[in-house]
Amino acid sequence: MSSYFGKEIHVTIFGQSHAECVGVTIDGLPAGEAVDEEALRVFMERRAPGRGAETTARREADRVEILCGVNEGVTCGAPLAAVIRNGDTRSKDYDKLRDLPRPGHADLTAQIKYGGFQDVRGGGHFSGRLTAPLCIAGGICAQILSRRGVEIGAHILSIAGIEDARFDPMGESKEVLGRVKSAQFPTLDGEAGMRMRDAILKAKREGDSVGGVVECIVTGMPAGVGSPIFGGLESRLAAALFAIPAVKGVEFGSGFGAALMRGSEHNDEIAAEDGKIVTRTNNAGGILGGISDGMPVIFRVAFKPTASILKKQKTVSLSRMEQEELQITGRHDPCVVTRAVPVVEAAAAVVALDALLERNADKL
Amino acid sequence: MSSYFGKEIHVTIFGQSHAECVGVTIDGLPAGEAVDEEALRVFMERRAPGRGAETTARREADRVEILCGVNEGVTCGAPLAAVIRNGDTRSKDYDKLRDLPRPGHADLTAQIKYGGFQDVRGGGHFSGRLTAPLCIAGGICAQILSRRGVEIGAHILSIAGIEDARFDPMGESKEVLGRVKSAQFPTLDGEAGMRMRDAILKAKREGDSVGGVVECIVTGMPAGVGSPIFGGLESRLAAALFAIPAVKGVEFGSGFGAALMRGSEHNDEIAAEDGKIVTRTNNAGGILGGISDGMPVIFRVAFKPTASILKKQKTVSLSRMEQEELQITGRHDPCVVTRAVPVVEAAAAVVALDALLERNADKL
Amino acid sequence: MSSYFGKEIHVTIFGQSHAECVGVTIDGLPAGEAVDEEALRVFMERRAPGRGAETTARREADRVEILCGVNEGVTCGAPLAAVIRNGDTRSKDYDKLRDLPRPGHADLTAQIKYGGFQDVRGGGHFSGRLTAPLCIAGGICAQILSRRGVEIGAHILSIAGIEDARFDPMGESKEVLGRVKSAQFPTLDGEAGMRMRDAILKAKREGDSVGGVVECIVTGMPAGVGSPIFGGLESRLAAALFAIPAVKGVEFGSGFGAALMRGSEHNDEIAAEDGKIVTRTNNAGGILGGISDGMPVIFRVAFKPTASILKKQKTVSLSRMEQEELQITGRHDPCVVTRAVPVVEAAAAVVALDALLERNADKL
Amino acid sequence: MSSYFGKEIHVTIFGQSHAECVGVTIDGLPAGEAVDEEALRVFMERRAPGRGAETTARREADRVEILCGVNEGVTCGAPLAAVIRNGDTRSKDYDKLRDLPRPGHADLTAQIKYGGFQDVRGGGHFSGRLTAPLCIAGGICAQILSRRGVEIGAHILSIAGIEDARFDPMGESKEVLGRVKSAQFPTLDGEAGMRMRDAILKAKREGDSVGGVVECIVTGMPAGVGSPIFGGLESRLAAALFAIPAVKGVEFGSGFGAALMRGSEHNDEIAAEDGKIVTRTNNAGGILGGISDGMPVIFRVAFKPTASILKKQKTVSLSRMEQEELQITGRHDPCVVTRAVPVVEAAAAVVALDALLERNADKL
Repeated sequence: MSSYFGKEIHVTIFGQSHAECVGVTIDGLPAGEAVDEEALRVFMERRAPGRGAETTARREADRVEILCGVNEGVTCGAPLAAVIRNGDTRSKDYDKLRDLPRPGHADLTAQIKYGGFQDVRGGGHFSGRLTAPLCIAGGICAQILSRRGVEIGAHILSIAGIEDARFDPMGESKEVLGRVKSAQFPTLDGEAGMRMRDAILKAKREGDSVGGVVECIVTGMPAGVGSPIFGGLESRLAAALFAIPAVKGVEFGSGFGAALMRGSEHNDEIAAEDGKIVTRTNNAGGILGGISDGMPVIFRVAFKPTASILKKQKTVSLSRMEQEELQITGRHDPCVVTRAVPVVEAAAAVVALDALLERNADKL
Repeated sequence: MSSYFGKEIHVTIFGQSHAECVGVTIDGLPAGEAVDEEALRVFMERRAPGRGAETTARREADRVEILCGVNEGVTCGAPLAAVIRNGDTRSKDYDKLRDLPRPGHADLTAQIKYGGFQDVRGGGHFSGRLTAPLCIAGGICAQILSRRGVEIGAHILSIAGIEDARFDPMGESKEVLGRVKSAQFPTLDGEAGMRMRDAILKAKREGDSVGGVVECIVTGMPAGVGSPIFGGLESRLAAALFAIPAVKGVEFGSGFGAALMRGSEHNDEIAAEDGKIVTRTNNAGGILGGISDGMPVIFRVAFKPTASILKKQKTVSLSRMEQEELQITGRHDPCVVTRAVPVVEAAAAVVALDALLERNADKL
Repeated sequence: MSSYFGKEIHVTIFGQSHAECVGVTIDGLPAGEAVDEEALRVFMERRAPGRGAETTARREADRVEILCGVNEGVTCGAPLAAVIRNGDTRSKDYDKLRDLPRPGHADLTAQIKYGGFQDVRGGGHFSGRLTAPLCIAGGICAQILSRRGVEIGAHILSIAGIEDARFDPMGESKEVLGRVKSAQFPTLDGEAGMRMRDAILKAKREGDSVGGVVECIVTGMPAGVGSPIFGGLESRLAAALFAIPAVKGVEFGSGFGAALMRGSEHNDEIAAEDGKIVTRTNNAGGILGGISDGMPVIFRVAFKPTASILKKQKTVSLSRMEQEELQITGRHDPCVVTRAVPVVEAAAAVVALDALLERNADKL
Repeated sequence: MSSYFGKEIHVTIFGQSHAECVGVTIDGLPAGEAVDEEALRVFMERRAPGRGAETTARREADRVEILCGVNEGVTCGAPLAAVIRNGDTRSKDYDKLRDLPRPGHADLTAQIKYGGFQDVRGGGHFSGRLTAPLCIAGGICAQILSRRGVEIGAHILSIAGIEDARFDPMGESKEVLGRVKSAQFPTLDGEAGMRMRDAILKAKREGDSVGGVVECIVTGMPAGVGSPIFGGLESRLAAALFAIPAVKGVEFGSGFGAALMRGSEHNDEIAAEDGKIVTRTNNAGGILGGISDGMPVIFRVAFKPTASILKKQKTVSLSRMEQEELQITGRHDPCVVTRAVPVVEAAAAVVALDALLERNADKL
């Protein structure tokens, strides 16, 4: 059980950082859905490295090649497969990592699981680069969802303790979400964004890295999507979100803050508005009993600081079982949060489309 | 997709709060494993209501009947099925809830998903009572794990903002875990526990409820368990944990705190100790790249305050689409956190055993 | 991976022949579907032993207890669980089988897989008795299907080489199917049925057993149900059918006979009839490319002769690794085919409902 | 649910006949396994068209490009992905098929399922060409199995009623299996093969096609692999085999012949030989209760005659709902059985490796 996910939409991710490509298959997409490759390129561009001083210097076109599943611009019902070639790789940078696992990385655990046969180059299958195929899947799902009025947007809620404004849990317009998507630095508050960039660059100068939080909202989600217990939307979203490297926490609606609240304060008052059931607040984050209640689905995802830092660190030589100093070279993001924003959206889009399709199977 | 979970261990939960019973099937348990029914009874007892003034007055024997899968005290390889009869139910309490959904409850979402056919009595399949069969599964898995040196323990980390001491992320002894398990109120710091009880009782007197956080540790987990991407331990643990009603957040290791840290601070230094690889800190929470690193797996789970409160609340009559006042009667916990402690352990035990068995399938 | 099946409908079978009960959970049934317990009883009765001299003398009420998932006579959306108590068991009959595996039985393979911990009494989880819970699931699914015009019927096509008439592959009326269902001996041709009974009784008198073939038809199946490759209807039906003990072969439409035909003869001519697409023959058995074409789905299932015979057989003492003579006692059907007829229908019903629900998830 | 399969080994097939490529991902392969690309090329060559007058004139290099999952010649634990480019395609041949579904083809059912968006060129995702990626998966699995002494071989048992000799169900040597694999025409009896070729060429000259049966044996399979009920080896093998286009029947061991046998004749006598349990006959086909018994696994697969024939056929214009004559052009095999032999082996190899790995998860 590794790199596949979903029930109606079945996503399989493959590739290693320095293999010929990374890619994805998506089985179960409805037929007849237009795939806008230009819109997908724009979506992928948001995840791409090398846009600013605060991201890794590795430059990749990240050009998506759709191999099959799309015919004359629309899905044909067959599994969609797409790849991104790995062009700009410098494999020699990574040679010694097989013996000297990097602190905070999967080097050690992969070594144990795969008995030394894992592909260590660039982190192999554990690389953040594997979020690119997830973005292909999510980008395509998001196009399909958007045509049904379901919009997904995310922003950087905090980096290094510097906080952006929060999404309005009662809803954000497509315009606001679009503005964040097209921003060079995806915050609601541009000034906070400036300070975040400074903090990233400062960490970079010091050979260090910083973490942060991404907030995501799904608007237009109809009520009644999801299932109780293990089939709940939170379970499925969390499973997809924790598949993103560096994620350490996920919370929905009021999240950890709920632990400090009284029931009378937390319960979202139910009301009727224009013949529709709504709630007056959205502490539930749009989900009750695992099922959407018609309010926006809202959640936050915590990212740890990038593990690959230039500062010297202590590790162990696995061959000699002796302490060693490790100096990581190569190109690394001092903060993954900026590039993680569309990845969080992508994970949400896959789950949202999967759950929406599943709902149709509730009735004959 | 609803009430089943797992890959090597396949758990299916069934029942409604006021149906004849709640129960579980567990397919894939190794054969030849002793099932200690008395130890299971003690485990279930920790979840059972009615032990103190701070829990619901509903009294249930919660006696587990193992129907099959165990022969002469040991698992026989066939699926294990077990039920708990629902004795003490007062179905009339719930009659009006079909029209007046309770704020913060699944009443509304179940109504929409199931078109009014859901079993509203006691919350039906969405009731916290459905955590009892999860505890059967987890209690049995925990016995099997314990025989292999894998111990799982949890405690109340906070209620209503009152904080217990934290587990040592570098490990807790079986004795400490056992002491919390046998405590009337499962905290490390008894004095903090006293204040939590007071806070619960105060909320109860006010017809209100409080939330909190449970912390859980899995010790003795060997390195190399889990898989990359969607098969990661965090993804699987989070999916199981968010299946517990009232959970709003899950974090591993440093969790949301990681967002405030520098990489140089967060990365756990790797060291060799007695010929074994260890880390000097455990911000990773024992998991790197989805795979266990041999350190304790540690995580925290946020619970919202109980949705069923005695205070008057506003809701809507679904038949008339008009605002209504709702006064919930019946017996409800003013705080689910105390009873949730073994439930969190149970979810962890199912995932841990599943992942440990899966590891054996990594090699021919 | 053992005793669960299905995607939208998730069926889990549990129990051993001499455990407290056998049972089933069905997750994913649409809510609001009436469950006619009397009709289910009649369906189960067709599988029940002890109706004639040609079946085992073991008498069981086979009374289905629905534990949950049904509320006021209709499905409530929560998983349905049901059990049948194992009343009339004589466990002592089976004591020596742990050492002396019966030829043609799972005794040996269970011993190896479960290391001697398997429940040998009455064949444990490998007993034909485990087809009773499959019948519960299938019987309920068939009720739901029938309300949508999908009818499933089966008959004995042959026993001991004596052949019944065949179903018309172009369709059989509900009346014809109903007549077979209510027959004491389920053949189309009563005279053939008489001869089959004689053959069974003759084998019984000689301490022996006979095999046969069941033919099954699904009418009213709309076109467009199923999926290509591994999701094909044949793959899913075959997987469910081979789960029935004693099945050795499954064929669809022309089946093995297709191997002898020319394409010009085998291809079903496509025609338009009353504005509907039909085919003039049905060699395809209603399935092309894994997807229903709107014609009846038709298939045949071969059953081996009952393994438990009273004649002396040679086996090996596993403890002494020496040849032994084995004389099986206990009560056994000299032919399982008669009781297998509703079991084949049940397997078909589960797959048909699963695939019909899945079809709804093809489109948003 | 469509084009993925397996539990420990997770295979996803993608591509359409005239898309850029067909391909496969295989998740869950053990790490450290050598992938012999030359041996794989030889395996693929057995399926490749254009080797003799009796196969389609379409020529394809069928060169397998492994994109990832293999590092320095061995599996690295990450999913393996591989593609075959679709070079020699003549898409214009297929233009009118969207309106005129070919009898015996998935044209009609795909049209209904995908609402006219399916890729009709060359049969799209329903083409026999999609068995090439299955062969990649199976070819690699077979290499891994062979290193553990598990050998898989198949031959043409019959074409157009002309019969080859049968495999010895008690076992066939690696030499015999190898000889069939390297034969131009894979029969045991060369003379029967000659007559089969004549029958194929005769059908071809007449613009027609013929069907046949493939027999497959798996030797060296240890006892104790598989699971009861839905997890049985027959269920899993049948599900994989019916995923191959044109398959109409599958039988194990004595198969449909079992229906004519007595129990005393069918039961395989158990014996001890050199401290090992064996059976004296192998009517069980190596599987009892879904679990391997240590004898060779043996089964037969019936293929219908190729649906694409040059003879004029009757069909319906979907746009005008009127009868039409259809004259298929393009290049088509007059018999798919010859090329299906390695495909059957491939399906068996995937299931065998999956089940072998699963067995390791039976015990902690």
